[in-house]
Amino acid sequence: MSQTPLLDIVDLPQDLRRLEKKQLPQLSAELRAFLLDSVGKTGGHFASNLGAVELTVALHYVYHTPEDKLVWDVGHQSYPHKILTGRKNRMNTMRQYGGLAGFPKRSESAYDAFGVGHSSTSIGAALGMAVADKLAGNGRRSVAVIGDGAMTAGQAFEALNCAGDTDVDLLVILNDNEMSISPNVGALPKYLARNVVRDMHGLLSSIKAQSSKVLGALPGAMEIAQKVEHKIKSMASESEHIKQSLSLFENFGFAYTGPVDGHDVEHLVDVLQNLRAKKGPQLLHVITKKGQGYKLAENDPVKYHAVSTLAKEGDAPPAPVPPPRPTYTQIFGRWLCDQAAADSRLVAITPAMREGSGLVEFEQQFPERYFDVGIAEQHAVTFAGGLACEGMKPVVAIYSTFLQRGYDQLVHDVALQNLPVLFAVDRAGIVGADGPTHAGVYDLSFLRCIPNMVIAAPSDEQECRLLLATCYQLDAPAAVRYPRGSGAGADVSDGLDTVPVGKGVLKRQGGQTALLAFGSMVQPALQAAEVLDASVADMRFVKPLDEALIIELAHRHDYLVTLEENAVQGGAGSAVLEVLAQHKIMKPVLVLGVEDTVTEHGDPKQLMTDLGLSADAVLAQIQSWLAG
Amino acid sequence: MSQTPLLDIVDLPQDLRRLEKKQLPQLSAELRAFLLDSVGKTGGHFASNLGAVELTVALHYVYHTPEDKLVWDVGHQSYPHKILTGRKNRMNTMRQYGGLAGFPKRSESAYDAFGVGHSSTSIGAALGMAVADKLAGNGRRSVAVIGDGAMTAGQAFEALNCAGDTDVDLLVILNDNEMSISPNVGALPKYLARNVVRDMHGLLSSIKAQSSKVLGALPGAMEIAQKVEHKIKSMASESEHIKQSLSLFENFGFAYTGPVDGHDVEHLVDVLQNLRAKKGPQLLHVITKKGQGYKLAENDPVKYHAVSTLAKEGDAPPAPVPPPRPTYTQIFGRWLCDQAAADSRLVAITPAMREGSGLVEFEQQFPERYFDVGIAEQHAVTFAGGLACEGMKPVVAIYSTFLQRGYDQLVHDVALQNLPVLFAVDRAGIVGADGPTHAGVYDLSFLRCIPNMVIAAPSDEQECRLLLATCYQLDAPAAVRYPRGSGAGADVSDGLDTVPVGKGVLKRQGGQTALLAFGSMVQPALQAAEVLDASVADMRFVKPLDEALIIELAHRHDYLVTLEENAVQGGAGSAVLEVLAQHKIMKPVLVLGVEDTVTEHGDPKQLMTDLGLSADAVLAQIQSWLAG
Repeated sequence: MSQTPLLDIVDLPQDLRRLEKKQLPQLSAELRAFLLDSVGKTGGHFASNLGAVELTVALHYVYHTPEDKLVWDVGHQSYPHKILTGRKNRMNTMRQYGGLAGFPKRSESAYDAFGVGHSSTSIGAALGMAVADKLAGNGRRSVAVIGDGAMTAGQAFEALNCAGDTDVDLLVILNDNEMSISPNVGALPKYLARNVVRDMHGLLSSIKAQSSKVLGALPGAMEIAQKVEHKIKSMASESEHIKQSLSLFENFGFAYTGPVDGHDVEHLVDVLQNLRAKKGPQLLHVITKKGQGYKLAENDPVKYHAVSTLAKEGDAPPAPVPPPRPTYTQIFGRWLCDQAAADSRLVAITPAMREGSGLVEFEQQFPERYFDVGIAEQHAVTFAGGLACEGMKPVVAIYSTFLQRGYDQLVHDVALQNLPVLFAVDRAGIVGADGPTHAGVYDLSFLRCIPNMVIAAPSDEQECRLLLATCYQLDAPAAVRYPRGSGAGADVSDGLDTVPVGKGVLKRQGGQTALLAFGSMVQPALQAAEVLDASVADMRFVKPLDEALIIELAHRHDYLVTLEENAVQGGAGSAVLEVLAQHKIMKPVLVLGVEDTVTEHGDPKQLMTDLGLSADAVLAQIQSWLAG
Repeated sequence: MSQTPLLDIVDLPQDLRRLEKKQLPQLSAELRAFLLDSVGKTGGHFASNLGAVELTVALHYVYHTPEDKLVWDVGHQSYPHKILTGRKNRMNTMRQYGGLAGFPKRSESAYDAFGVGHSSTSIGAALGMAVADKLAGNGRRSVAVIGDGAMTAGQAFEALNCAGDTDVDLLVILNDNEMSISPNVGALPKYLARNVVRDMHGLLSSIKAQSSKVLGALPGAMEIAQKVEHKIKSMASESEHIKQSLSLFENFGFAYTGPVDGHDVEHLVDVLQNLRAKKGPQLLHVITKKGQGYKLAENDPVKYHAVSTLAKEGDAPPAPVPPPRPTYTQIFGRWLCDQAAADSRLVAITPAMREGSGLVEFEQQFPERYFDVGIAEQHAVTFAGGLACEGMKPVVAIYSTFLQRGYDQLVHDVALQNLPVLFAVDRAGIVGADGPTHAGVYDLSFLRCIPNMVIAAPSDEQECRLLLATCYQLDAPAAVRYPRGSGAGADVSDGLDTVPVGKGVLKRQGGQTALLAFGSMVQPALQAAEVLDASVADMRFVKPLDEALIIELAHRHDYLVTLEENAVQGGAGSAVLEVLAQHKIMKPVLVLGVEDTVTEHGDPKQLMTDLGLSADAVLAQIQSWLAG
């Protein structure tokens, strides 16, 4: 059976819309094969994309994109969308430097209606678009596609609450792959079903009791009562299944459709055509399977959430290549277990990032002190504050970029109250393939202005352990920020030693120039210093700064250079300038860090070179500055 | 009927617990009278405190405070709590400099279990305490008291979702005063009731249809069917009332009790005694009336939410004293209406702050372009991003302190995508009586590090209008931050004129010292400059900075001083230091701003003096620095 490949003639949604509906299953199969092939070669998010193939085909078939707006929540599932919207031939550049972004991005395509990356923004953004459309009166449609996991975040609730109250033509598609990141998300619908059943059984008992009094003696009457009983029971049973998902959304004023098989593309088209014509907020509940069509991924979607390269079907799953050196995440995970063994007050909190934050072993060893709160960064921080009030010592393991979501809570519920919560801030600095939405280059600036905060930035693995132990034992609000990936490979001790707070370390004694380096920039600074014969300080702490060391270095050198993997604006170098100004020390200072631009995605080494932060680039910048 | 005043012998909860239950109504009445008297004299939050009198008495009577933990959400309703926990004699210092804080504050009392100020943190904090208690095994209880309005914020949802999934002994009290800030909050429970009723009516029709076929001919049978019908109808009717609130919480795994009359203190004691003995997450639904016991407040609780001083009952309501000059909030409100009249793309968004943000007139004039999203700052910002994508020009009116709650959304959903959203940031700087939880002294630092942001700080009312119009017409992400209250009284034009972006204005030409002032600090700088004979620049923009003006001033003066009403760390002065370093200009610079401490509450003038930011204090600081 040889069929003409349809995907060859589909570059844009308008091509897709020329196909007959009955051709869509074939197109979907081809799209899935193409996806397997392209992601298999480039790596990237995988299981959720396989699950979204038919939904994507049906959406672009029915909706008039790009005039109609599709907003993909988080964007992990947007690869089929990219393939169908003119980017098929660039899929081999996915998440690579200069290539396609791993998430929808407005500057990349008119079909990417909204830039995403963090979870749970799609309903609010699509609502904004729908309201704009209503005000403009141009009859477009807005669609948000959101996974069940993303529903744990409060922001999704806020948006539902507002959307249901409007009369705009908004479609929210719940892509329910039964792979919710947090099991909690199901609490609401599960209860609803239970509740309805209980009510109906109560009613049933009451009917039977009343009936038997009078009808007992009447022939045939009890049969009718039993018939009613059966009807109630079947209604209750039916509702148990349907209402689980129905109620959550109808409660907010959405009209509910579903559940619908998310892999039956022809049926999806019918359903969407019907929904596109409807008025008011609509909710379509679609059941999909993560990894659909790829057996290895279907069986282990967590593992295949994102992959480097893929085995062909039938192959054994690819053996993960162990990194040559432990990552900072692993260093943190080990320290956490050791510290927890030594201190029963330690509790660890993650907003749905157990694997990413290195908490797998901790959960196994200390399950009662492990708290995954779901995608709920605000709650994670306030919850930690509450624990700290009562004598516990919470460690919030969180990516730098996600800490932005709990900022007010960090200010109010931890810092202003001076509570001993330690933020283990992972992925600080440039993150690589995930790109600008995940860049951790603002934390030094947004944390430094907050009273009571201690901020440390380790320069290698051993420093990471030392600074974690130090900040943990401080009994004050503190953040230790460390980069993605592995470091230089320093030997890491077993102990829980601490270092003096607010004191840096002179790593190299040199001539006229002193390099004041923070965290990950100590290694490049040391390399550049060899050529420059510069002094190098590992400052260790961004707050409090080692003022004595800064003053001493300023007095003994003609030129100062600060280096950090953070925005220059308000970052660690800026803090050094403040100290120098305060002490009326006037020396030329070169502040190196991430310039004021939106960083791009790609290989971190390439990005660091572009930003002038690789060892070579740092050297070149300093030499040019000294010569200028 | 003369009774011994009970409040005279009740200083602490332990005194309260020695009373008989039947004495509690009298104590409540005395407490209410005391509250009326004390708030009437000092001003402060009013209606919500009157509504919480009996609940507070009952809670302290039943729960073993301070070992058991009471967390008051937001804290507007905590005055009765303060009166009963050793602070009765200091109520006359409420919200005054050096006096009691307007919110619970851990450093003020062991009975203030958690410091609050922003909404919707209580459930998460109390959950943290309950989990800590469970881990420690010391049998304490944790209670969160949250109003219906605070339930719109996503964070409350996040906490409910997590709490319902635990087996900790947590009590959440929904203080339902039917005064929800947003009408949306009712969408969920309202639907539920509708849904149950619909199901039951469907069932009823089915029963009747089946019954009539067989039973029609049988004597008495139809009466029974009608009896069943009546039962179903009354169940449905009953459920309509009860389930409205029941379902929201039971859905999350809470056991529901209520609704209970929140002004029947003896009954509340019985209910709470029962609940305190129960295991697992409990929800108590209490119906109260804002302003209970004070007719004027009962009739107009919005007006009496917070008051300056109170009339005695029977008096006419106090006539609000018009401020001598329009506030910045009013200047914003007028500009917004004028700009909206000129540009149909303008839409305005507020997270439940219509009055506070000056949007009352806008809502009246442009109802279809006005969006109150409830207490939902995250959604407010993302919603604006969505609107901007489709050609609208959203203005988000938000207090500086609340913008902290939408920080990640500002980064992702506006700035990184370079969308034209204007943030009208009110209450920037020191806020006075509301204290540290409402201080708007971090925004320059946390906004300045974000790419694409334009940040302006007006120095007077006319500048405020000019900078709002300028930033609005930029078609880029921008924030205009202005202080609480009124300015110097500049004449304000009617037009929509703009000024050049990133350009400051030299306001005074002087001698050896140049003052680079931002926003509200321009006036004190001008005053100090008269004595110093200093030059003064109104910098207007914090980002982009007027580099040319800075360089020129640096070259023509021996000393530079920067002045801002923001944290020194990473603020506007820090930005000036960065520019000077970048241009290798070495001049002594004094950076004046809010030092790195938790600010206190009180009279703003006093606070500004304490912080060294009043005109006199600025002058003294500069003179001392010049002499040093």
